[in-house]
Amino acid sequence: MKKLAGGLSNVPGYKFSAIKSGIRYENRLDFSIISSVNQCNAAGMFTTNKLFAAPVKLCKDRINNPINSILINSTNANACTGSEGLETAEILTKNISEILKVPESSILMASTGIIGVQLPREKMQKQIPDLISKLSLDSGSIVAEAIMTTDTAKKESAYSFETSKGNFNIAGIAKGSGMIAPNMATMLSFIITDAPIKKEIMQKIFEKCIHKTFNAITVDGDMSTNDTAILLSPIKDFSLEQDDDIEHFEKALFAVIEELAKKIVKDGEGATKCVKISVENAQTEKDAKSVAKSVAESLLVKTAIFGGDPNWGRIACAVGYANANFDINSVSISFDNIEVYKNGMPTNFDLKKVEQIFKKTEFEVIINLQNGNSNWCYLTSDISYDYVKINAEYST
Amino acid sequence: MKKLAGGLSNVPGYKFSAIKSGIRYENRLDFSIISSVNQCNAAGMFTTNKLFAAPVKLCKDRINNPINSILINSTNANACTGSEGLETAEILTKNISEILKVPESSILMASTGIIGVQLPREKMQKQIPDLISKLSLDSGSIVAEAIMTTDTAKKESAYSFETSKGNFNIAGIAKGSGMIAPNMATMLSFIITDAPIKKEIMQKIFEKCIHKTFNAITVDGDMSTNDTAILLSPIKDFSLEQDDDIEHFEKALFAVIEELAKKIVKDGEGATKCVKISVENAQTEKDAKSVAKSVAESLLVKTAIFGGDPNWGRIACAVGYANANFDINSVSISFDNIEVYKNGMPTNFDLKKVEQIFKKTEFEVIINLQNGNSNWCYLTSDISYDYVKINAEYST
Repeated sequence: MKKLAGGLSNVPGYKFSAIKSGIRYENRLDFSIISSVNQCNAAGMFTTNKLFAAPVKLCKDRINNPINSILINSTNANACTGSEGLETAEILTKNISEILKVPESSILMASTGIIGVQLPREKMQKQIPDLISKLSLDSGSIVAEAIMTTDTAKKESAYSFETSKGNFNIAGIAKGSGMIAPNMATMLSFIITDAPIKKEIMQKIFEKCIHKTFNAITVDGDMSTNDTAILLSPIKDFSLEQDDDIEHFEKALFAVIEELAKKIVKDGEGATKCVKISVENAQTEKDAKSVAKSVAESLLVKTAIFGGDPNWGRIACAVGYANANFDINSVSISFDNIEVYKNGMPTNFDLKKVEQIFKKTEFEVIINLQNGNSNWCYLTSDISYDYVKINAEYST
Repeated sequence: MKKLAGGLSNVPGYKFSAIKSGIRYENRLDFSIISSVNQCNAAGMFTTNKLFAAPVKLCKDRINNPINSILINSTNANACTGSEGLETAEILTKNISEILKVPESSILMASTGIIGVQLPREKMQKQIPDLISKLSLDSGSIVAEAIMTTDTAKKESAYSFETSKGNFNIAGIAKGSGMIAPNMATMLSFIITDAPIKKEIMQKIFEKCIHKTFNAITVDGDMSTNDTAILLSPIKDFSLEQDDDIEHFEKALFAVIEELAKKIVKDGEGATKCVKISVENAQTEKDAKSVAKSVAESLLVKTAIFGGDPNWGRIACAVGYANANFDINSVSISFDNIEVYKNGMPTNFDLKKVEQIFKKTEFEVIINLQNGNSNWCYLTSDISYDYVKINAEYST
């Protein structure tokens, strides 16, 4: 497995395009498409929010078809837009299918942005020919730009991996920033590979990888209406089937998603730090996850991280109110390699050394429950003045 | 029932004292006591955090005894202090009992402040005679001051109520501010009455009142290690027993606790607004509570409230990810008397009028699930720059 520079354009067999269509703002990339030369198998994971956007409904209905393209817009979520919103998504994808001469059912759509406003359907329809005419093999990175909302940097990741059937590539892009919570995090992510994988294998592996990556990050604990992650793999006359080959694919897929997940937390709204919360030796994986989530989502922990204050008391407190089975008097807490709390009591740690750790932009909090063999970790950002600023000044 | 000015000193039969003992800071009221002339029945509710402080353990062990006094200190939580911390609580309450000539087991203790630091046991022991010598009937309000930490104002409430056995009084104080989450909110509260009530009735009514007040408020979603609420009622040769009388008592108790709960949210760390989140017509009370909690704890909702942005989309989104049974397409949302969202879609509301509502320091968000007859409400504060400032600059 080899890490590659850049993003989607590393994968042969796909074309990309992004334009400034003026959906909400002038002069901003906001309308884009990822289009495959072959028909593809697709795997998808979507928000579990009851309030899901029109494009999420469209994707859920179509994800089991052979897929050709994913149409994407930013700046407008097309959520809370009723039947008119769903009709817009259907019409836009129909227009795409007609130009590309592929079935309507092979076009997916994803949207992100403001809730409760109709997309400017006709304006967008008029620009579809321009969007399609600009499709090219090397425009992967501008799609990564076009899906951004409050993100400050584009997020892409790419790897190549070897199999018994040759060398393949896999690459992904993501947008994150706000409304990031660990249940199919609030985000869009699109991953493509030139490795042909059977649909049922793809979906299983995709879910497994997301469970430990996108679903284990938190910025603000809010789960959005538009979370969408889609994986495309071309339908060819052969598929990777050997266990070894599938394993190589899974490792590369995991690496791509893990890197994107980390980039999302680091670029969380107002975030200045990215901290790994590792829970070790829990009785069950559920317990480990519950404790990690409790600490990762605690506002008091997140503001202490922002302030650079090694406040182990707030961490111990959040451990204490997690819904999990353990004895608080057996719990130990370390910051990187320094144990600050052991068996329910603070240790005589060197405060200066610990303060140095809290000044870093990345460090690890390790919580040892001493109650079993299950582990889990979360990535969390801090909550800063800028988080409040970004979200208080956002205008409906 | 009649509202009274002031706090604890409205209730005959109790004495109060508070001094500056220099536990963590010089020249700050930090050591106080509420002492009853009679032995009392006590009802108590405590944090459900596995990590609970030494004084919480002491209270849980003694709450079923006849109670004489509650010793209270601020600026140090006596949490994560192991057997030494528990021994300190035991010794301090023993010293009190010796001077007051009452059983050791009749003295409760409550602490609030920094976690993981031992109380200055000997320093405090030396000041106990001074603390006791200052006991007086009219010092109720200085105890309300002495229990404050980051609170900006003392919180007291008092009512009188009539019964078939005469007129009685009930009064309470509370401290809140940070680590406020709705599971026996992070706080101390002490409520006293001169009405004699049987112990088992007291505990039941106390739990019922707290369930809908202290357990239905949220500032930051963090549940502390020291949450303690205690109710004292004198043991006399008669008790209120008639249903009518108990009802009058319950109403007055509820009024006191409700007022204290509201004061806690209004004085939440950095809070500029206090918003009531009312959920109506849920299938079950559990569903109503789950939806109210989801909205009340959403960081995106809380920052929108701070920013004065009537962002119904974020509210609908938080409704959508609550763990409850309803059809999102039947949900309506109103701000005070203006409906902004109906059956899954925004209405054509007057944005200017709605912005006026969001400028107020108190208003109501009403979420109608149209799925049953159960209701619940939460009080929530906003999250401001100052919340981040207070909690980022707090020093371990």
